[in-house]
Amino acid sequence: MYFIGERINGMFKDIANAIANKNEEVIKEIVLQQTSSISDALDINVGPLSKNPVSDMEWLVKTVRKFTDLPLAIDTTKFEVMKVGIELAGKGKGIINSIIPDLPNVEQYLNLAKNYDSKIIVLTMTENGLPKTALERIEVAAKALTMLQEKGISVEDIFIDSIILPVNVAQDQPVEVLETISQVKMLSEPQCKTILGLSNVSQRCPRRSLINRTFLTMALTKGLDAAILDVNDKELIDSVITAELLLNKQIYCDNFLESYKKKYC
Amino acid sequence: MYFIGERINGMFKDIANAIANKNEEVIKEIVLQQTSSISDALDINVGPLSKNPVSDMEWLVKTVRKFTDLPLAIDTTKFEVMKVGIELAGKGKGIINSIIPDLPNVEQYLNLAKNYDSKIIVLTMTENGLPKTALERIEVAAKALTMLQEKGISVEDIFIDSIILPVNVAQDQPVEVLETISQVKMLSEPQCKTILGLSNVSQRCPRRSLINRTFLTMALTKGLDAAILDVNDKELIDSVITAELLLNKQIYCDNFLESYKKKYC
Repeated sequence: MYFIGERINGMFKDIANAIANKNEEVIKEIVLQQTSSISDALDINVGPLSKNPVSDMEWLVKTVRKFTDLPLAIDTTKFEVMKVGIELAGKGKGIINSIIPDLPNVEQYLNLAKNYDSKIIVLTMTENGLPKTALERIEVAAKALTMLQEKGISVEDIFIDSIILPVNVAQDQPVEVLETISQVKMLSEPQCKTILGLSNVSQRCPRRSLINRTFLTMALTKGLDAAILDVNDKELIDSVITAELLLNKQIYCDNFLESYKKKYC
Repeated sequence: MYFIGERINGMFKDIANAIANKNEEVIKEIVLQQTSSISDALDINVGPLSKNPVSDMEWLVKTVRKFTDLPLAIDTTKFEVMKVGIELAGKGKGIINSIIPDLPNVEQYLNLAKNYDSKIIVLTMTENGLPKTALERIEVAAKALTMLQEKGISVEDIFIDSIILPVNVAQDQPVEVLETISQVKMLSEPQCKTILGLSNVSQRCPRRSLINRTFLTMALTKGLDAAILDVNDKELIDSVITAELLLNKQIYCDNFLESYKKKYC
């Protein structure tokens, strides 16, 4: 699986404060916490409270870049914020997180992706919001894949995010998301990738870690390729490694957990 | 899920000794351990070392019946042992574990099932052994379902066991088993049930509980209905409950773990 660390996000109070006070030390600590675990990339989000999101994103990416060369998933709904983040993440080192494929300014994002050789996370949403069913999500994904490929984006650079809602308020949704994942993998050859913002499934639930790791194991069974998640949740990581072992994606050895983790050190 | 406790099995040394010494106390303790957790049925196996398996099964089932009325899965390859176990388990309270559908004496088992209103676990095996691929297992299951229904066994009483081998020696097998489970669910309408002897997946592996709960979560995602497993493995049980919550099979509440367990007390 492709692991994207979720912690550099202004939704977390420590990060919001660090951004407000331009406190590099806090950012450093959390970057290193994540890169010392299993991380293929880090999500970067200035948070909803940022008053100057463009300059905050600029500071945040520059700060993060002092401590890691990993790809950065620039997580924002504002194009100007995305642009500065992707530019500073560097050529081939940025992930656009995310686009809604039928929005009028989608062309700007695609040009940005092409100029900076970025990957793109595509939400299975429309201007009208998030469809309730797998079928409707798959329709959005299929249209988006065609459109993006026509515009010159390679299918291997596309991650489809079918958007998981919290199970406590939308209990019919996990099944729809699981079905979407398995179907999306059949839409193109070569396949596009699938991704989830995992922690959302357990928002405001007790036993979050248990819910997260159970749902991630289920999603991997359906073919999930990537997730934005808490890379410091040891039990979550162990579940992923074990699921990949059982899916025959990693050769068995008795210390399969340690052996997998070693690849990241 | 339908939980079948695995512990009354002569493969475990304490049970083998209890059978050899006709020690009711040990059997009582382990029956109660299991029925105080989540158990829909208990597996009963005199073990490979039993010298008088018919009389040992007779003693074992009579002993177990003093402490529980749950259905009993009589686990043996010998017909005479099966017969005494199923008779003593009682009408509508026995599960034949298991039959290989193309063996010459299969008719005896089906008559036993009809006489005692038993459920039947069918292995996806032939006289030649266990097929390596999902496709071949599904073929065995399809033929068996037709044959058993022709002989008057109701499809709802049939559990198909696609047989999981230990991941450390047969790492290609979990994927085949997962595929078999999802396909077998499509063979008939109404559907037959699917079952696994879970613990076998982690035989002689480290981190058995982690491997077991990860594989069970994966199998539930593919539609598994039942498993013979360690009902006293709390983390395993919690994974099942959480998977069923995410599959929308239990209504969400904040204490979803406790609420599920209450149904068994």
